[in-house]
Amino acid sequence: MAEFKPGPQTKIKRIPERGSYEKESIYQILDEALICHVGIVQDGAPIVIPTIHARIGDQLVLHGAPASRLLKYIAGGNPVCVTVTLLDGLVLARSTFHHSMNYRSVVLMGSGKLVDDPQEKARFLDALVEHIIPGRSKEARGANEKELKATTVVSIPIEEASAKVRTGPPVDDEEDYSISVWAGVLPLKISAEAPVPDSGLVDGVQVPDYVSEYQRS
Amino acid sequence: MAEFKPGPQTKIKRIPERGSYEKESIYQILDEALICHVGIVQDGAPIVIPTIHARIGDQLVLHGAPASRLLKYIAGGNPVCVTVTLLDGLVLARSTFHHSMNYRSVVLMGSGKLVDDPQEKARFLDALVEHIIPGRSKEARGANEKELKATTVVSIPIEEASAKVRTGPPVDDEEDYSISVWAGVLPLKISAEAPVPDSGLVDGVQVPDYVSEYQRS
Repeated sequence: MAEFKPGPQTKIKRIPERGSYEKESIYQILDEALICHVGIVQDGAPIVIPTIHARIGDQLVLHGAPASRLLKYIAGGNPVCVTVTLLDGLVLARSTFHHSMNYRSVVLMGSGKLVDDPQEKARFLDALVEHIIPGRSKEARGANEKELKATTVVSIPIEEASAKVRTGPPVDDEEDYSISVWAGVLPLKISAEAPVPDSGLVDGVQVPDYVSEYQRS
Repeated sequence: MAEFKPGPQTKIKRIPERGSYEKESIYQILDEALICHVGIVQDGAPIVIPTIHARIGDQLVLHGAPASRLLKYIAGGNPVCVTVTLLDGLVLARSTFHHSMNYRSVVLMGSGKLVDDPQEKARFLDALVEHIIPGRSKEARGANEKELKATTVVSIPIEEASAKVRTGPPVDDEEDYSISVWAGVLPLKISAEAPVPDSGLVDGVQVPDYVSEYQRS
């Protein structure tokens, strides 16, 4: 199975048995996550900004307004860290000490570049929409020339990345199993509620299946 | 209403009308979020690590293993950024360009310190459990002396912080309202599924209400 090579910053040091460098696991987590948190350095201090992403092959793509300091920083080839985290459940142990969460996370380090070819940009912007809600980019009006100019797109090669995953029940100390307290896992997921139609819809337009049947995981 | 003073890094520059420095909004977002993403700088590069947090008054508290590089960094008084993001919905516009998300996020910049008083530490660890699942710290066995020693707790004063919030329907270009495509908001939330009891439970132990009726927002 294809694996990434851990670098000094992506090597899993804490609880290494939870770590993975497998491409397939890493790609799956990146693809399921709706948002990522991007870390940059400004004047020596860290800044973490949430944004949406899409994985296109072995690249991670971000977008935003040309004025965005985040995108200017990435377009400048500076070192960046992109982290995504999926919460799968609360792990309730008999002791507070062994409480935990089931989760899947990816930490990706790298440096990006500007995507300036208009056709590639348009394709990447569609991929961002498809990442969030598959089927949508075929229905909505695609970006026109003015909108393409008003959007900055950057790509970061996925080369140094690691995943960390916890699954399964709580693990208590032997002597705590006799405590009369409920223990187990409370699974969590992102769920969609009833779609709220915009007030100005054209008469007769129905909610598409990709909206009414939306599921993330 | 109490407000934080925006600093150079927390001042909302992009779409400032979405920004807020109100304590109440910021605290509410911090309190609802199950996890945060913490940014640090190592060898000039950013690293973003997901972890759980709790707000205790005007402090944000994090915890982990004493070997954690994240906690060592924070305990050393280095500049840190903590970001939390709540996703409230997908905003589907007629054009891909105007697609968006409804969200509430907080970016907090500061520097922390080690919490070394054992009593304060124990209280903060209970607060971390209560933050995730209210009611739990009264039932589970609290940390003993050995466990307290095996846990590092740090606190960061909440002084420089800003919130960014988007709510409401899509906003399309005037000429796009005639396009026959569904538009609106697909609300998202974190929901709990049926609790999975651990296999070694003491006979007769029931699922507590704070588990079976768990809701986040």
